[in-house]
Amino acid sequence: MIETPYLLFLGDAPDQLAAKVAQGIRDWRPDNAVGQFRMDGCKADLGLPDMDLAAAKAAGAKTLVIGVANRGGVISQAWKKVLVTALEEGFDLASGLHNLLRDEPDLVAVAEATGRALHDVRVPEVDYPIANGVRRTGKRCLAVGTDCSVGKMYTALAMDREMQARGMKATFRATGQTGILITGDGVPLDAVVADFMAGAVEWLTPDNDPDHWDLIEGQGSLFHVSYSGVTMALIHGGQPDALILSHEPTRPHMRGLPDYQLPSLEALRDLSLTLARVANPDVQVVGISVNTAALSEDEAMACLAEIENRMGLPAVDPFRQGAGRLVDALAAL
Amino acid sequence: MIETPYLLFLGDAPDQLAAKVAQGIRDWRPDNAVGQFRMDGCKADLGLPDMDLAAAKAAGAKTLVIGVANRGGVISQAWKKVLVTALEEGFDLASGLHNLLRDEPDLVAVAEATGRALHDVRVPEVDYPIANGVRRTGKRCLAVGTDCSVGKMYTALAMDREMQARGMKATFRATGQTGILITGDGVPLDAVVADFMAGAVEWLTPDNDPDHWDLIEGQGSLFHVSYSGVTMALIHGGQPDALILSHEPTRPHMRGLPDYQLPSLEALRDLSLTLARVANPDVQVVGISVNTAALSEDEAMACLAEIENRMGLPAVDPFRQGAGRLVDALAAL
Repeated sequence: MIETPYLLFLGDAPDQLAAKVAQGIRDWRPDNAVGQFRMDGCKADLGLPDMDLAAAKAAGAKTLVIGVANRGGVISQAWKKVLVTALEEGFDLASGLHNLLRDEPDLVAVAEATGRALHDVRVPEVDYPIANGVRRTGKRCLAVGTDCSVGKMYTALAMDREMQARGMKATFRATGQTGILITGDGVPLDAVVADFMAGAVEWLTPDNDPDHWDLIEGQGSLFHVSYSGVTMALIHGGQPDALILSHEPTRPHMRGLPDYQLPSLEALRDLSLTLARVANPDVQVVGISVNTAALSEDEAMACLAEIENRMGLPAVDPFRQGAGRLVDALAAL
Repeated sequence: MIETPYLLFLGDAPDQLAAKVAQGIRDWRPDNAVGQFRMDGCKADLGLPDMDLAAAKAAGAKTLVIGVANRGGVISQAWKKVLVTALEEGFDLASGLHNLLRDEPDLVAVAEATGRALHDVRVPEVDYPIANGVRRTGKRCLAVGTDCSVGKMYTALAMDREMQARGMKATFRATGQTGILITGDGVPLDAVVADFMAGAVEWLTPDNDPDHWDLIEGQGSLFHVSYSGVTMALIHGGQPDALILSHEPTRPHMRGLPDYQLPSLEALRDLSLTLARVANPDVQVVGISVNTAALSEDEAMACLAEIENRMGLPAVDPFRQGAGRLVDALAAL
């Protein structure tokens, strides 16, 4: 669990895209971010107050979150000066970078001396159990994709926001580094040892009120040969009551796999239901989330109408339209 | 890669079952075992020559393999004396125990001083790649089960033996600790980090001669919620040309999951084919391996006949009958 609120460190981000982790926190958990810390030459701007460490401390910030992707994967000396000072001034540090904070001897030494925490959210910090398959109380929703990176996290976050607005009981359950930094906790599922994947998902989505929904962040795709085992563990560990099919309609092939075509939404529906019924015989597919960012408004509407008509399920782009109809479908279960 | 041949350490095994790893090596790779080392009170016997360390060294043994499950999971002081002496006399050590050799400071110190290796086969020793899904040359066969522990490893080893006897090109590919100790190498798949599972299977089964068969050791079951992600990675990373369905007909529920019924062989066939076709559209189910150990001879024959008739595929208990008909089915592909 990462202590909130955050000061978002944008470093010397070369452009806005490099700060997409910080942007995610800004978009989805604005209450978690008191301000942004930008170094000379930073080209990203979240529209948050610029703060130095002292101002952020005064505003209540507990953790400096590295919300920027660095070039070459190294934690630069230019950053180091800020990070060390932050530890000395009482901030914890959190990062999703490939290069770990804990592998930097100077940061480790200062963190130990000051009693502060270094959170590398790519690294599991819990000894997860082996899944036991016991049915849990409460309800769970999982987005499964025709491919990786089709908008599963966005869909779950948008549904969570809509459900909070309606006063429904809901919790977004992060399973990847960006989601963990946004919410402050979760399971970095792709870094969990194979035997414990499904158990980690059970741990993440425990017994809850009968009318509470966990919105589990999806990963990978059953049709993506590199990561399908992770998706499988989400389906069997999550024992979802509701599935959302996620799709990006313009992709020419599976992400990173030029020889692999995307499956149809029908194939995704049938396979996902077959597998999910092993853990929860009552599971239903309730809707379809389509990422139409590459389409014009007219094209997007036509695409959504075609899918909705063909599949007999609400088909929505939550970025263009909000997640209201997907939440309606959950509420109707 | 563990250096062969082995001296098999049976320690103070309380019964024959406790030495089942050693028994597996004795049964499947007798050339890998020059003898057995038994301590006072050992109740297991593999029928191999009893040797002390000097005799085993003279007979060519390179590695002392802990072929016995210990009680309570600790490496006892009674064992330690033998293990330390073995290192000093030039043996490597290999173990599949939960408690790791590398976590024993005395063993580590002696291994470093003598330049010997400590092989904990539960721990991956390779940085596996992320799977790339590229089709590989050569052929691959994978056993998939209605449940865990239904005889998948035995089936693959029996097929390997039969194929060697026929002069076919075949390699058993170990994916679990017992298989790795039997053959001296492999991937401890259940201990691999999630993102790299399928890549580890690709790494294990590389390009090969067009008429060469990899016989990949199966793990878990698509229908076992604790481990299905590992099975998924075997199917997508292994890109099998041939599947064998494995089944144990008397099991009352999924292993360790009292609320979960076993699937039908038809359900296993259909789901496995759907998933395997993602990586290899030409995959076929070629036969069924049935573990009839709990049945009488008459019951077993009736069970096999019923399954063969119902499924339209050769149904064999390789322990009772050998794997000849399964190999015939592979050869006919």
